[in-house]
Amino acid sequence: MDIEAFRKAGYQAIDRICDYYYLLQDRPVVPSVQPGYLLDALPDSPPEEGEDFAAIADDYQKYILPGLTHWQHPSFFAYFPTACTFEGILGDLYSTSTANPGFNWLASPACTELEMVVMDWSAKLLGLGDHFLHSSGKGGGVIQTTASELALVVVVAARERYMRMHSDTKAESLVIYTTTQTHSLGVKAGLVFGIECRALEVRAEDAYALRGATLKNALEEDQKRGKRPFILIATVGTTSSGAIDRLDEIGEVAKDHPSLWIHIDAAWAGVTLACPEYREVAQLDSINAYATSFGTNFHKWGLVNFDAALLWVKDRKDLTDALDVTPEFLRTKQGDAGTVVDFRNWHLGLGRRFRSLKVWFVLRSYGVEGFRNYIRQGIKLNEHFASLVRASPKFALVTPPSFALTVFRLTPSGPHTFTDSELNDLNRTFYARLSSRHDILLTQTVLNGVFCIRFAVGAARTQQEHVDRAWEILQREGAVAVQEFAQRKLVNVP
Amino acid sequence: MDIEAFRKAGYQAIDRICDYYYLLQDRPVVPSVQPGYLLDALPDSPPEEGEDFAAIADDYQKYILPGLTHWQHPSFFAYFPTACTFEGILGDLYSTSTANPGFNWLASPACTELEMVVMDWSAKLLGLGDHFLHSSGKGGGVIQTTASELALVVVVAARERYMRMHSDTKAESLVIYTTTQTHSLGVKAGLVFGIECRALEVRAEDAYALRGATLKNALEEDQKRGKRPFILIATVGTTSSGAIDRLDEIGEVAKDHPSLWIHIDAAWAGVTLACPEYREVAQLDSINAYATSFGTNFHKWGLVNFDAALLWVKDRKDLTDALDVTPEFLRTKQGDAGTVVDFRNWHLGLGRRFRSLKVWFVLRSYGVEGFRNYIRQGIKLNEHFASLVRASPKFALVTPPSFALTVFRLTPSGPHTFTDSELNDLNRTFYARLSSRHDILLTQTVLNGVFCIRFAVGAARTQQEHVDRAWEILQREGAVAVQEFAQRKLVNVP
Repeated sequence: MDIEAFRKAGYQAIDRICDYYYLLQDRPVVPSVQPGYLLDALPDSPPEEGEDFAAIADDYQKYILPGLTHWQHPSFFAYFPTACTFEGILGDLYSTSTANPGFNWLASPACTELEMVVMDWSAKLLGLGDHFLHSSGKGGGVIQTTASELALVVVVAARERYMRMHSDTKAESLVIYTTTQTHSLGVKAGLVFGIECRALEVRAEDAYALRGATLKNALEEDQKRGKRPFILIATVGTTSSGAIDRLDEIGEVAKDHPSLWIHIDAAWAGVTLACPEYREVAQLDSINAYATSFGTNFHKWGLVNFDAALLWVKDRKDLTDALDVTPEFLRTKQGDAGTVVDFRNWHLGLGRRFRSLKVWFVLRSYGVEGFRNYIRQGIKLNEHFASLVRASPKFALVTPPSFALTVFRLTPSGPHTFTDSELNDLNRTFYARLSSRHDILLTQTVLNGVFCIRFAVGAARTQQEHVDRAWEILQREGAVAVQEFAQRKLVNVP
Repeated sequence: MDIEAFRKAGYQAIDRICDYYYLLQDRPVVPSVQPGYLLDALPDSPPEEGEDFAAIADDYQKYILPGLTHWQHPSFFAYFPTACTFEGILGDLYSTSTANPGFNWLASPACTELEMVVMDWSAKLLGLGDHFLHSSGKGGGVIQTTASELALVVVVAARERYMRMHSDTKAESLVIYTTTQTHSLGVKAGLVFGIECRALEVRAEDAYALRGATLKNALEEDQKRGKRPFILIATVGTTSSGAIDRLDEIGEVAKDHPSLWIHIDAAWAGVTLACPEYREVAQLDSINAYATSFGTNFHKWGLVNFDAALLWVKDRKDLTDALDVTPEFLRTKQGDAGTVVDFRNWHLGLGRRFRSLKVWFVLRSYGVEGFRNYIRQGIKLNEHFASLVRASPKFALVTPPSFALTVFRLTPSGPHTFTDSELNDLNRTFYARLSSRHDILLTQTVLNGVFCIRFAVGAARTQQEHVDRAWEILQREGAVAVQEFAQRKLVNVP
């Protein structure tokens, strides 16, 4: 494709993306395709001769779009949102147009320096302490791909720091602390490194937050059994229920354990720190006082297109001491002189995309106020949803709503009194009905044995009307689920 | 930004990318900026109020473009090329426009299935055996981010497979085999996992290829010292010199060691397998006979924009057994039924970009013939360069040229006879001169103590005129370097 053909295909792509967003809310959220639909539709080998791009672009509309789950749909309430803004799209477009893997400063100075700039900007946006800034000369931030990979980076750095502090440590005595509510990134880190992962218990009455006393007991137990917990992955805003670990208590306990690395995973909820009114509940002061590292994904609720997982560390040397590999073919005079940051030593890979560009575009186009307003809008919509649940005799919150996430379930009142097991059964029936629909998407979870449903707001186009429509669907499907359950179990329901 | 503002900014972006490519060859390859140029130029906080996108887009031209190293410049001969095609740009554009992280089949059916399709297409393009295809029902391919992260995935899978086979294994007895020429991904994997990494020796007379006898001796030695080598990372086309390990010999030796995982890192040179005439030298038959896994980066020389590191495994269960984590909130009925591939269990993270789209666009637009011709063009240009070196009395090849890579150095003839150390010194002077220029970029390496310079062809816009111009520069700078050296050391040179 030559330059002018690209101009034509590029304009067409822009136009079709515009069409996509004009028509998005008329599409189903979830496609109706069956497993294998595309494998069956496409040839099983690449073409021998090149094809005209117009035909390829048309096939995107014909085969791909109908097989997408539309995460940007205003009725998408599943998982957590993935940000997709026009500014983010443009950032990715400019970035991919030059394909500069800025792994060293010299490999593209602008890539390295813009990342330093936007990481300091983002830290200030969130109210992170100066010790996390590049300008501190000691700490600093780096953009990783996902929260899971970010956690792997942190675990390596924490392990190596621990081994330097305690050189007698046997690998098999190492333990990663998480809670039973930590995202799967904790268990995955354990699998990847072959390190024991201990999930500390949390209680419903604490809204699934880790308490200091639980941590303290675990540390004492592990000391007795010769185990070496070297990192705690605490969470601000768990995936299942938006729980916020008690960082104040955790920090106090950790004071007696200076080799325990405290990583705060705020992949989803970290962006709420942009709003001064949420800093207390999201425990900003404790993050600044106690966190060795802090991560939040701007690609979730932070307006920046996937991927942009932001990681800050108090001491950049913890990363570079663990991850620096400099073969001859990667040496540069600036790197040798130590005058520049070479981000290849701050992550797992070598090559890296120019992700800071889209962060820069978004932060400038929205400004601090625009960013805050977007977060506030999501929280307001969720408060609206939670108020509908609260007011209904047929539904109940399972745990207090958290920012833009509500976890709820069907709880029909008499004449039949539902056992815990029956309520789970009923709600599984209810969820199965919901997940067979194509006009809405929610996800399930289990909280200490209670099967429940997550309602996560935050897609950029979601308005109150979409929440209200979702509530209508939930009421209707809930009523049918109760009837179905009653017929199946031969019990009386209202 | 609303939809119509996006249309305007999108058209502008497309136009500016066209301008970029029209003007690219008039730009310097390497920018003249000094460390800190952008940190100094930009504000140190994000704006409070949102800014107009037109100003932001202009600032990209003003601050970012002048600070980029232009990997797509026709005079970029450093590292290895990073592919950047208009088809790839369009693939990234469509992909980012919907922001669907297809970690589960349900999270976006098209993302999962198109990845299966293009991985089977690519396997066929390269001549990989049927056992690597998804359609085999046992093997399959997956797109990773970089060769380094791909290697981490493979090492985890290999380690877990080994531990299942030998459950008595102590973690500290594990060893990763690489060679002294393996890319830094080998050492990095050792660092990340805290596993010993043993670099097997290779010799100049074998063109830096690992021989079977070396592997055999190492296995015997390690058996004696109670070590457990569980993976060999062999290379087809090393970064320093394009060396190709003797997979035929390695495979024969490995027959007696069925728990040794053979990973073939063909990050750069794997794409040459698309051409039937290079399959013998790139050892396709041995790859198909002996490789447990095989990786190649289409984002290097394979026309697909960064990132697209393609990994195939003989047995997909080796990946999922090592990496499967399924919390409740990630369960789906299709996943539970086992009727679909959930790619989240094939890599380190959870979320993943829709990378297969750009691979699909490229393979369809180029076709098999177009892809082959592109590879052939790079090899032809390199043969031209190598012939210039061979014909010159002042330069010498350090090792035979490999595909599109030539490693050479200055070797002036009499009256002074240069010692090995003096030749290295001279060539460091020569390279320092080259790396202070902005109109060309090459990288250095060291091969068994010999300092030398790499010339890597493959940027899409490089033509013979650019190679000839590079050769002129090399001759001129070489002559000056020799004179400088002579004055400094007071020796006679021609």
